[in-house]
Amino acid sequence: MREWNQRLVLDLLRGEGVATRPQIARRTGLSKPTVGQALLGLAEAGLVRAVGRQAEGPGRAALRYEADPTAGHVLAVDIGRERLRLAVADLGGNIVSKVDERNRCRSGAALVRAVRELAERVVALAGLAEGQVVTTVVGSPGVTDRRNRAVQLAPNLPGWGRTGLLDELAAVLGPDLLVENDANLAAVGERERGAARGVDDFAYLSVGTGLGLGLVVGGELFRGAHGAAGEIGYLPFAGVAGEAAEHGQMEDAAAARSVLALAERHGLSGMRSARDVFAAARDGDARASLVVREEAARLAYVVASVAAVVDPELVVLGGGVGGNADLLLPSMTESLRRTTPLAPRVVPGELGEDAVLVGAVTTGTAVAREAVFDRRLRAVRASFT
Amino acid sequence: MREWNQRLVLDLLRGEGVATRPQIARRTGLSKPTVGQALLGLAEAGLVRAVGRQAEGPGRAALRYEADPTAGHVLAVDIGRERLRLAVADLGGNIVSKVDERNRCRSGAALVRAVRELAERVVALAGLAEGQVVTTVVGSPGVTDRRNRAVQLAPNLPGWGRTGLLDELAAVLGPDLLVENDANLAAVGERERGAARGVDDFAYLSVGTGLGLGLVVGGELFRGAHGAAGEIGYLPFAGVAGEAAEHGQMEDAAAARSVLALAERHGLSGMRSARDVFAAARDGDARASLVVREEAARLAYVVASVAAVVDPELVVLGGGVGGNADLLLPSMTESLRRTTPLAPRVVPGELGEDAVLVGAVTTGTAVAREAVFDRRLRAVRASFT
Repeated sequence: MREWNQRLVLDLLRGEGVATRPQIARRTGLSKPTVGQALLGLAEAGLVRAVGRQAEGPGRAALRYEADPTAGHVLAVDIGRERLRLAVADLGGNIVSKVDERNRCRSGAALVRAVRELAERVVALAGLAEGQVVTTVVGSPGVTDRRNRAVQLAPNLPGWGRTGLLDELAAVLGPDLLVENDANLAAVGERERGAARGVDDFAYLSVGTGLGLGLVVGGELFRGAHGAAGEIGYLPFAGVAGEAAEHGQMEDAAAARSVLALAERHGLSGMRSARDVFAAARDGDARASLVVREEAARLAYVVASVAAVVDPELVVLGGGVGGNADLLLPSMTESLRRTTPLAPRVVPGELGEDAVLVGAVTTGTAVAREAVFDRRLRAVRASFT
Repeated sequence: MREWNQRLVLDLLRGEGVATRPQIARRTGLSKPTVGQALLGLAEAGLVRAVGRQAEGPGRAALRYEADPTAGHVLAVDIGRERLRLAVADLGGNIVSKVDERNRCRSGAALVRAVRELAERVVALAGLAEGQVVTTVVGSPGVTDRRNRAVQLAPNLPGWGRTGLLDELAAVLGPDLLVENDANLAAVGERERGAARGVDDFAYLSVGTGLGLGLVVGGELFRGAHGAAGEIGYLPFAGVAGEAAEHGQMEDAAAARSVLALAERHGLSGMRSARDVFAAARDGDARASLVVREEAARLAYVVASVAAVVDPELVVLGGGVGGNADLLLPSMTESLRRTTPLAPRVVPGELGEDAVLVGAVTTGTAVAREAVFDRRLRAVRASFT
C-alpha cells in the first residue's frame, strides 16, 4: 500500500513537473498526511526532491517537489554508417553529455570497440561513474535477430550481421541493453518532441546512407511479424534492376549513393557526396536541381507505396538526404499528387540528426524510471531491516 | 445483476456450443439455482433453447442447452464488378440462404436497385419476414467516406462513388448497416474459417477485376488513417506508365484486365477473360503459361512491397485471378525469393469466392448478437411490467 501511494505521487510529479503537498493531495485524492509520508519515503530513496517554496493562500508557503531527474541516467547510442552519436540523459530526458564521431570502422569487432570507447567517454563527460547508467538503448539499421543474437539486414555496416553481436554489445554496454531499429527510434523521437507530436498513426521515412521507415500505429511502434516492418530499402523498384540487390532495390535507387549516381549521369562533376549535390542545387545549379527532382520523384514513389499499404496520417522526412526537405518537398508533393489519390501529408522532421538519439532517450527513460523506482525503494527498505 | 448472469451464461453457451445446467454452473462459478434462473430468462427471451438430455452420473439425465442460433439473422452482401452475392445467416454463422447473380448494372442507382431486389429475394428464401434481419454487412471495393456518405476509390463500379450512396443503401437495406471494404471482409472470413485461422498478423490479397488488400494487425482489421490502408491498386509500378491511372498503376498492371493484355501481347488469341487464360495454361498452352508467369511476377512485386512496409506473417491469396494459386504460387515464390529477403509465406485462400460473404457474416453476427441480447431481454422485461 505504501509503495502504491509512493508510485501514485511519483507518477503525478513526473506528469505535472512540480507540485506542493496540498496540490498532490488534491490531484491524487490521498490525504495530506499520506502524501507527506509518501514524499518522505520517495525523498529518502532519492526519487523526489524539494525545489523551493510556493505561497498558497494564507500561512507558510508550501514546499514544492519534483521527481528528481538525477535519480538515474540512460545511455543512448545511434550507430550510423557515417557517424556514431552517443548521449547520456537523466530520467527527465535532459541530455547531459553527448559525443558525435565519424564512423571509420570496417568490421563488427572494430565497431563494438569504438562504441565501447565512446560510451566510456560520454559517461565520464556526464560525471557518472561506471555502473550508474540504468538502461542503454542502441539504434542501429537492420532487424534484431534474437535467435542468432545478431542484427540482420544492415549491409551498410560491415561485419555487423555476425552471430553473437548482441552479446558482444551487452558485454561492453551492460546487460540492461535494448537494440532497436534506428528509424523506429527516430519515429519515437519525432513523436515525443518533434514533427509528430500528438499523432498516433504516422511513418518516419529516413533517407541517408540507407533507407528506413519507422511505423507508429495507434501510438505504438509497429514492428511486423519478424521485426522487419519498415525495411523499405527492400521495396521492389522496377525502375532499376529486376533482381534483388544486397542493399535492396529501393535503397539502391533512392539512398545517398543514388543521388551521387544521378549526379554523375547528369554530368555534374566534382561531387563527393549527396551533401555536395544538395549544396549545388541550393546555389542554383540547374543540373543539381534536376538530380534533386529525380530523387524527390523516387522518394514520392516510396511514400505512395507506403500510403497504398498502411494509409498513414503523416509522413515525417528525415535522415542525411531527407533532411533537405526544403529542396525535396515541393517536387515530392507534386509527384505524389500526380501518382496517387492517397497522398499523405509529408513534413520535414524537426529533430534533424538528433531524432534517433531522442527516440533512444525516450525509450530508455521509460524503462529506467521503472527500474530506478524498484531498485531505490528496495535499497531503502533493506537499509531499515 | 440478473442481466449480467444471463450474459455470462449466454456467452459460455456461444463459446462451448452445448452444455447442461451443472456444466454451466461449474464453468461460470455461478450456483446451479442462479444458472437455472438465467436459463429460464434466456429461454423466455428466445435466446437459448434446450436440445435434448445428457446423462451425467446417477439420477435423471440433465437437459442440454445451446444459444439459439435462430434468435436473429444477418444479411451479408458482396458487391463485385462481376457478381453480386448475398447470403442470410443465423446468429451461429450458418448460412441459411444464398443468391449469386451476374452484376449487369451500369449506374449506381441501378446497382442499389439490384441489391434491393436480391436482398428481398434472399431474405424470402430464408423464410424470414421483412424486418427480421438484425444487421446487414455490405462488402464493396473502395473506401467509405462518411462525410460525403459515399464510397470512394471504387472505379470498377460505375456511379458507385456518388454522394449519398450510403444513405441510398440504408434506405433499401435498413439502418443497421455496415459498409466495409471487400478485401477487409475477406481477411476476416479467412481468419474465421479459412487459411488464416489463428494468425494475428497477415494480409489478404485479392486479385480479380481489381486489386485489394485486407490487413489484420494484432487480430484486428487495420484501416489506416483515412480507411485507405490496403488500397494496393494504387501502389506505384514503374514498370508501366509513370502517371496515375484512374484504377491505379498496380491495378492496371496486375488485375484481371492485365492478364488479358499480357495474353494479347503474347499473341494468345480467342481469350475473352482472365479465366480463359488460366484454363489455357492449365491445358498446357506455352504462351498462356508465360502470361501466368508474368502475372505471378507482378503479384510477387505486390507481396514484396507489402512485406517491406508491414512484414506480415502470412499472405493469403484470393479473388477471381488470385484463386488460381495452383498456377501462380510456384512462380510467385520463385520471384519473391529472387527479389526480397523479406518474403512472407504465401498461401491460397480456403474460402474461394465465399471469403467476402463469410467475413460479412462473421462481422454481422458479432454485432447482431449484442443487439439481439439487448432487444430480446428488453422486450421480456417490458412484457412483465
